[in-house]
Amino acid sequence: MNITLTLRILGALLLFLAIALLFPVPFSWFYGDGAAGAFILSAIISAGCGGLLYSQFRSETDLSVREGFAVVTFGWTFFALFGALPFVFSGAIPSYLNAFFETMSGFTTTGSTILTDIEAMPPSLLLWRSLTQWLGGMGIIVLSLAILPMLGVGGMQLFKAEVPGPTADRLKPRIQDTAKLLWGVYVLLTGAEVILLMAGGMGFFDGLNHAFTTMATGGFSTRNASVAAYDSAFIDWVITLFMFLAGVNFSLHYLALRGKLGDFIRNEEFLFYASLTALGTILITLLNMGATYPDFFDNLRFSAFQVVSIMTTTGFGTADYELWPVLCQYLLVFAMFIGGCAGSTGGGMKVARILLLFKHAHVQIYRLIHPRAVRLVKLGDRPVDKDVMQSILGFFAVYLGVFVAASFIMAGLGMDLTSAAASVVATLGNIGPGLGSVGPVDNFAHVPAFGKLVLAFCMLLGRLELFTVLVLVFPSFWRK
Amino acid sequence: MNITLTLRILGALLLFLAIALLFPVPFSWFYGDGAAGAFILSAIISAGCGGLLYSQFRSETDLSVREGFAVVTFGWTFFALFGALPFVFSGAIPSYLNAFFETMSGFTTTGSTILTDIEAMPPSLLLWRSLTQWLGGMGIIVLSLAILPMLGVGGMQLFKAEVPGPTADRLKPRIQDTAKLLWGVYVLLTGAEVILLMAGGMGFFDGLNHAFTTMATGGFSTRNASVAAYDSAFIDWVITLFMFLAGVNFSLHYLALRGKLGDFIRNEEFLFYASLTALGTILITLLNMGATYPDFFDNLRFSAFQVVSIMTTTGFGTADYELWPVLCQYLLVFAMFIGGCAGSTGGGMKVARILLLFKHAHVQIYRLIHPRAVRLVKLGDRPVDKDVMQSILGFFAVYLGVFVAASFIMAGLGMDLTSAAASVVATLGNIGPGLGSVGPVDNFAHVPAFGKLVLAFCMLLGRLELFTVLVLVFPSFWRK
Repeated sequence: MNITLTLRILGALLLFLAIALLFPVPFSWFYGDGAAGAFILSAIISAGCGGLLYSQFRSETDLSVREGFAVVTFGWTFFALFGALPFVFSGAIPSYLNAFFETMSGFTTTGSTILTDIEAMPPSLLLWRSLTQWLGGMGIIVLSLAILPMLGVGGMQLFKAEVPGPTADRLKPRIQDTAKLLWGVYVLLTGAEVILLMAGGMGFFDGLNHAFTTMATGGFSTRNASVAAYDSAFIDWVITLFMFLAGVNFSLHYLALRGKLGDFIRNEEFLFYASLTALGTILITLLNMGATYPDFFDNLRFSAFQVVSIMTTTGFGTADYELWPVLCQYLLVFAMFIGGCAGSTGGGMKVARILLLFKHAHVQIYRLIHPRAVRLVKLGDRPVDKDVMQSILGFFAVYLGVFVAASFIMAGLGMDLTSAAASVVATLGNIGPGLGSVGPVDNFAHVPAFGKLVLAFCMLLGRLELFTVLVLVFPSFWRK
Repeated sequence: MNITLTLRILGALLLFLAIALLFPVPFSWFYGDGAAGAFILSAIISAGCGGLLYSQFRSETDLSVREGFAVVTFGWTFFALFGALPFVFSGAIPSYLNAFFETMSGFTTTGSTILTDIEAMPPSLLLWRSLTQWLGGMGIIVLSLAILPMLGVGGMQLFKAEVPGPTADRLKPRIQDTAKLLWGVYVLLTGAEVILLMAGGMGFFDGLNHAFTTMATGGFSTRNASVAAYDSAFIDWVITLFMFLAGVNFSLHYLALRGKLGDFIRNEEFLFYASLTALGTILITLLNMGATYPDFFDNLRFSAFQVVSIMTTTGFGTADYELWPVLCQYLLVFAMFIGGCAGSTGGGMKVARILLLFKHAHVQIYRLIHPRAVRLVKLGDRPVDKDVMQSILGFFAVYLGVFVAASFIMAGLGMDLTSAAASVVATLGNIGPGLGSVGPVDNFAHVPAFGKLVLAFCMLLGRLELFTVLVLVFPSFWRK
């Protein structure tokens, strides 16, 4: 471990955070919410610490895989630690632990909140909250790919650990260019959503906030009732569409913008993702028919919204799905595990992993029937390397292990079984709301202090694909 | 598929069943419960059908893997179909569907019951119920290995599909001898338990029944209150010990009987199994302390019993664990998934699979830290083949897939979420009782008819390691 280099890069990341912290300042002035000082103070602290780290630690060596893991894990942690400051300084969230939970939930695009009255918050802090998600969302793909090369260190090694999902589709040989291109797509889609939301009757501020958190599949809202507050079919459908798009591999969007629309239907993961979304929507609409919504189009609108919101791990709400038929809730719980496509901002286990798991099971059975036949698991036209399948097995094992251990701790802290399990599923999958006492109309404020730390760690684990964080726990990681 | 040969072997299995059906007859005479006629009639029907199949279908070809799958799957199904007859003929269980469920639960050593008043049953039918478990229990390892070679066909191919767990430790080159040796161990342990239970104050009849269902990790009891009815610390500890032994790979028992006791502590799976049992017992005893049992030794006795009963998937009860602290229930739910060792009569996912999963995850993380290091997953001294790891991945994928699909159906039939999921976990893992409306003090009588069929299929799937049954669903299995 080259700690010097790691600290230098973390310093650079804090300098970037300081700039981001200044973004809500003009909004604070405009709304006169009095939080501008808190942002400026936080930016100064971040810049001070960042500058100190960046200038004091110099290293001639190149970034290796080990430092990569440390930079990513501690980078995300530092963002949450320093990004929480304006909430505390402004007095909007007096408890630093709560502010840390909220900010970690932001940068990991989880969307779990400890706020009981969102609308009582100063607007600039709501914007900061949304911005943490927006930055975190593409961060997983783009941020570190654009920042790290800028520091003159090779970011390529990070790609392996950084990209959600099992495979990394290289768009362009040079990562930095790739990052900028994806960033462009991200900004473009966000802008398009702001315009459409405003066309649907949202103000600019609400539109910007919701576009930020939609594209990040984060799910923070500026309203207590989440998207239900607007009660607009148009807005619901716009957000449904953009949540769906945010759950797609961004390299496909980039190719589509360059006119290669055919790549969508040639991409097996996208097709599976679209099929699952459609199937889930149809099933839940059918199950809700008559029971919950008298009007078919209302039914379709609320059902589609919730399926996409949960499957992409966004977590927006337009309906209290705990009041839906039991079977709907059942489907939604399973959708929580699936998540978005690899290379999207969605969390969960990723569609590609689920798809490969199904294919693997099929090949296993085929081999039992035809012992002498050679049949490989393929994704698209390419056979999937055995090592990739092995790593998926490892991922599942660790995912289940973390789920078991963390929900055991949560239950030990006094939560009931459903809420304990759901709080871990919701944070580990970066979804946001869960079931029971952390359900869609509740929040995480009542979770015991230690439980909040455990759940914040689950968010980090889930967002960084488990292994990136877990390697740091092993003593051999720190040995020369 | 050589259907002729398959039918011939199934015929032979039915002839064997006919003999087994006569076993309870003297007991019926002794107790004068009037069920002897039902057994004799059932035996005649089984022998008739079996004899017809055996004599009418002749085949010169050898048994191949495909026929192996069909024989095992249909063999188990036939046993449940014909084994259910005495319940119906005697009028003890008037509904054939219920009788089929009960018998499938027996032969798969699951232990789920539809009986609401066990003690109202004629004694000979209770004995038959226990016997189905005893036969089913070792059946998975021994029965087909001893029967099939007797038919002059090579049973070796079956070993792959038949033995629970990922690897098959060959004891002796000739399967038939192995089968007989293991059978001897099984009988010996059963006999020892009968004697100890009688020493603890049980009558011969109850002792025989409970020894049958302990060694099979089945869990059928002759009392409504299960083992709690005897309220004896001695009996509880005897059954705890033998459940534990029944969850151990039987080849270790065989080696131990030949004086090689050291093999126990050299067997990694056994050590992991023993550690998990000890850890679970300690944790649950600590959690129950004060809260549930004032006396430490009572606490230890009930806690150990329940941990071993659930982890080995036996399902006996001495306490209503739904009244224990939430965290205890949580631990027990996870114990349900683990199951016994490979080569034992225990169900679940098997300790070896869980162990390999942990090791695999560890190696994965190690490789991320040391990308150039070569490190293999080992069990004992031997490296585990990549194909074995692949098959474990397949097993988990299918296990989860079946769990999701089946519990979805159960919820669709109107069961609440907990009971729907628990009924599938309890049957797929061959445990017996679940939680909620199918909990330890309830039964499966109220489950809708179609749900009983689904759960019976889950028992079969779980007992035959999923793939053995699922290959039959694929059209390519039936093609030439």
